[in-house]
Amino acid sequence: MKTVALISKPEKPELHTVAPKLVEWLTARGYSVLADSDTAVYVPGVNKVERSEIAANKPDFVIVLGGDGTLLAAARSVARAEIPILGVNLGSLGFLTEVSLDELYKTLEAVERHDVAHEARSMLECRLVRDGKTVAEYIALNDIVITKGAIARLTEVDVTVDGRFVANYKADGVIVATPTGSTAYSLAAGGPVLEPTVDAFIITPVSPHALTNRPLVVRDSAEIAVIVRSTPDEAFITVDGQRGEQVFQGDQVLCRKSAHKIHLLRLSSRTFFDVLRTKLKWGER
Amino acid sequence: MKTVALISKPEKPELHTVAPKLVEWLTARGYSVLADSDTAVYVPGVNKVERSEIAANKPDFVIVLGGDGTLLAAARSVARAEIPILGVNLGSLGFLTEVSLDELYKTLEAVERHDVAHEARSMLECRLVRDGKTVAEYIALNDIVITKGAIARLTEVDVTVDGRFVANYKADGVIVATPTGSTAYSLAAGGPVLEPTVDAFIITPVSPHALTNRPLVVRDSAEIAVIVRSTPDEAFITVDGQRGEQVFQGDQVLCRKSAHKIHLLRLSSRTFFDVLRTKLKWGER
Amino acid sequence: MKTVALISKPEKPELHTVAPKLVEWLTARGYSVLADSDTAVYVPGVNKVERSEIAANKPDFVIVLGGDGTLLAAARSVARAEIPILGVNLGSLGFLTEVSLDELYKTLEAVERHDVAHEARSMLECRLVRDGKTVAEYIALNDIVITKGAIARLTEVDVTVDGRFVANYKADGVIVATPTGSTAYSLAAGGPVLEPTVDAFIITPVSPHALTNRPLVVRDSAEIAVIVRSTPDEAFITVDGQRGEQVFQGDQVLCRKSAHKIHLLRLSSRTFFDVLRTKLKWGER
Amino acid sequence: MKTVALISKPEKPELHTVAPKLVEWLTARGYSVLADSDTAVYVPGVNKVERSEIAANKPDFVIVLGGDGTLLAAARSVARAEIPILGVNLGSLGFLTEVSLDELYKTLEAVERHDVAHEARSMLECRLVRDGKTVAEYIALNDIVITKGAIARLTEVDVTVDGRFVANYKADGVIVATPTGSTAYSLAAGGPVLEPTVDAFIITPVSPHALTNRPLVVRDSAEIAVIVRSTPDEAFITVDGQRGEQVFQGDQVLCRKSAHKIHLLRLSSRTFFDVLRTKLKWGER
Repeated sequence: MKTVALISKPEKPELHTVAPKLVEWLTARGYSVLADSDTAVYVPGVNKVERSEIAANKPDFVIVLGGDGTLLAAARSVARAEIPILGVNLGSLGFLTEVSLDELYKTLEAVERHDVAHEARSMLECRLVRDGKTVAEYIALNDIVITKGAIARLTEVDVTVDGRFVANYKADGVIVATPTGSTAYSLAAGGPVLEPTVDAFIITPVSPHALTNRPLVVRDSAEIAVIVRSTPDEAFITVDGQRGEQVFQGDQVLCRKSAHKIHLLRLSSRTFFDVLRTKLKWGER
Repeated sequence: MKTVALISKPEKPELHTVAPKLVEWLTARGYSVLADSDTAVYVPGVNKVERSEIAANKPDFVIVLGGDGTLLAAARSVARAEIPILGVNLGSLGFLTEVSLDELYKTLEAVERHDVAHEARSMLECRLVRDGKTVAEYIALNDIVITKGAIARLTEVDVTVDGRFVANYKADGVIVATPTGSTAYSLAAGGPVLEPTVDAFIITPVSPHALTNRPLVVRDSAEIAVIVRSTPDEAFITVDGQRGEQVFQGDQVLCRKSAHKIHLLRLSSRTFFDVLRTKLKWGER
Repeated sequence: MKTVALISKPEKPELHTVAPKLVEWLTARGYSVLADSDTAVYVPGVNKVERSEIAANKPDFVIVLGGDGTLLAAARSVARAEIPILGVNLGSLGFLTEVSLDELYKTLEAVERHDVAHEARSMLECRLVRDGKTVAEYIALNDIVITKGAIARLTEVDVTVDGRFVANYKADGVIVATPTGSTAYSLAAGGPVLEPTVDAFIITPVSPHALTNRPLVVRDSAEIAVIVRSTPDEAFITVDGQRGEQVFQGDQVLCRKSAHKIHLLRLSSRTFFDVLRTKLKWGER
Repeated sequence: MKTVALISKPEKPELHTVAPKLVEWLTARGYSVLADSDTAVYVPGVNKVERSEIAANKPDFVIVLGGDGTLLAAARSVARAEIPILGVNLGSLGFLTEVSLDELYKTLEAVERHDVAHEARSMLECRLVRDGKTVAEYIALNDIVITKGAIARLTEVDVTVDGRFVANYKADGVIVATPTGSTAYSLAAGGPVLEPTVDAFIITPVSPHALTNRPLVVRDSAEIAVIVRSTPDEAFITVDGQRGEQVFQGDQVLCRKSAHKIHLLRLSSRTFFDVLRTKLKWGER
């Protein structure tokens, strides 16, 4: 029996209509439906599982109802199981949630016909090493950021690539981004756009004091290390802009490409460049 | 009798030599010398006053021994008294501390001959208004920044100029900078350099989500209002990158040109552009 | 008797309808109408004058039918006579041609009631000095640009402000822009936006080799000199992006604020920031 | 017998000393030395060949005495033969000419010991297609640029990647750069730095009118097409900033990764990041 899991953004009034109808549609077509607790709020009586248990239930794919933020959180929770994700945006087109509500059922029918693109997106796996010990591990679809505290003037880090010293950065922060993350925070900080299939990561400083500290694109087979330097000010690590904790002088953040990939289900008629033009308002021909 | 006040950076070993010698030199030339508590650490037996009491003692001028950070703090403490400041850098050339230790006595002799430039620098005066009441007031020589919390994704503010709506910014923060501040944080965030005498302020967004949100230069006779919008995330105000406190939804930060100016004492042979080229490593002819 | 002059963009089909109707409307209200040769193509029998003769006829104001390019050219031709200009855009909103065809008659009625804003815009006057002699003079509403030839690698210039050396630039070119020009080529090259009333000019390098060569805002009372340095490659000067000629090693381009201003007639309900938001797609609240 | 070819920059006085000494050193070690006509000016009696004939003589490697410009030209002339190149800079460190005169003989001895790194750099091969026919072919180590004429306001092009429409650009020009070219013109125009081994090309617009037209990094297995659109103004194509010719409306510039690579001989102790820090003045730890 086919299984599908639903992950939803909380407090979206339209989901009180959309989500039950979707569950009904899926059930009618023979799917076993699992719902995370946010979805269960919209669909009384649905089969509810914790988000952290979804991967263990091995659904054929996950439908995310929300925006790019909801999908980022969902992606991290099923990342290591490589379960395909269909991102449905509730409002405007997202970089990750490309399917609109209008296109939802058309796209699900395409999924049934195996007529959708499976786009693999690489992820970052990072270890936070303190005094020689790994004290935390993270997986990120967009980016890992080492950033100053709110009232701090700056943060200072060293970056190495495969052990070779790249630079010392004095900046608001330093972003290590995937191609997927190239259109998120890194772009706001002045980074380039990477086509999703480029085998590379970006190291983008945020408001660096040295004006020549420009974004740097490196092979994704490299290990990127960000080392927190001496500073009187607080510094933090954030993951996909969603989680964060304090880091301290001498802490090392070691980033590698994850062995796992996120698989986005997409209508094959829409290219990455179509989404880019629309989101960045580049205009059409 | 002539009076001079000394303000020093703490924990600079070389000041244990430099400061006593300077006090001796000044005393020998008939100056009454006042020292802030940081300077008094370096000069046992000197006439010590609290920094907040310096202005009330009406010194002819203030000598700052430190870097731009020390001068910024000193400037705010004597701002409303308009006491001239001579900035002496202990290491590399600063934008504000242009005089090196090598040039110190030559410059002091020029001060005695009235052969130095008095460069007036405008300042920002800001009021933090909450629920219709002024809850805090600030004076800044460089900038006022409304910024996101460390783990927050962004801050959202509206900006108006003389009551006219400019824009809604979703960004890491928004900087309101003086011409003096144009070479500080605003520059790192992508702002232009303003010659110190331009009658203008700069509104520079930091890593804005809308890529077209570019730095904006407005007349310094205008009132610039930054209004904190609805956000689940924390936001803060910082003054010259040195003081800060939390702000809340609906808070208004109202910025105007101060009625007072900072007066920097400078060797007339060195231009602003000379300092700029050296600090930004533009190279020479 | 009131006189109005019309200046039009050539080869715009809609002007075959719009221009005759406008002439009729103006004539019916007692205006004597003068038309440049481009307008005369659209309005058979109209009183035609050469564009260079318009100022001598002392019209009360000029109506420009076209886009920002048409207005720039018109502005230079009537600049020294300080005749007010009403800019009407035929398509999308321009920074200078703010009035749409829909608003044309409403605005003309407001002109008759003296109920429009007269916005003064400063201009640049430049002299091209070769071997100590002025060989050409220019007036610009937007900008003066010293630029490399198409196949050249770069151009090299020195810039001084009031005789003080600013920097040597190796770049595609260097722009000297008015506040009005801050939203034109200078913006594309990374310059800031200046509110039109700021008393300043911008010096913006285009793709400079030194990444720290940032846009510089200087007082508009200064004389800005751009001096062409030794180069094997061709270099050119362009004025408002519309006129140009070759310059040579040792040539000096001396720029000052013009004694004259352009006076734009504007509906007082629309602010500069409204135009900025719309043109730069900053979105609304 | 080992053969080495020398390619030199013309009109460098120091080469009258350096080049003869180098020829003597190489001859003494049993090399057959070939000299291009520029080198022959410095070394009377040397075995002279046309630069275009060097590849046919199958030297073991080429020594370039000059700067990055000299190496770029040399690289294109031996590109298809894949002959290794040792770049020696006469003045400051270049991105491509990493070996200083001081290091020359030490490096040559390392070459003899097979103790140097062979760094492969990808190149662009482009065809200029007009009316369905290939009218010119180019090979570039740094970049291919479609650019406006000197007095033109802009150029307008469409870009596609593997036939998928990316965007219409209105700009001074559009750069297609290799990783090697990422530190050349593309960097000045705002592009990111790419580590030389990243399998990607960069599409960087120069001063685009749409402020959101950001640099784009795409896989180097893609075909990038730049199509010249309707424009009243002149447009040109330039190759490595050194050659150029006019292009016309409808012309297509089709760019692919070359089947050939340039092989740079390098001292293995110096990393790309070391060169980057030195050239961009990032400072050291």
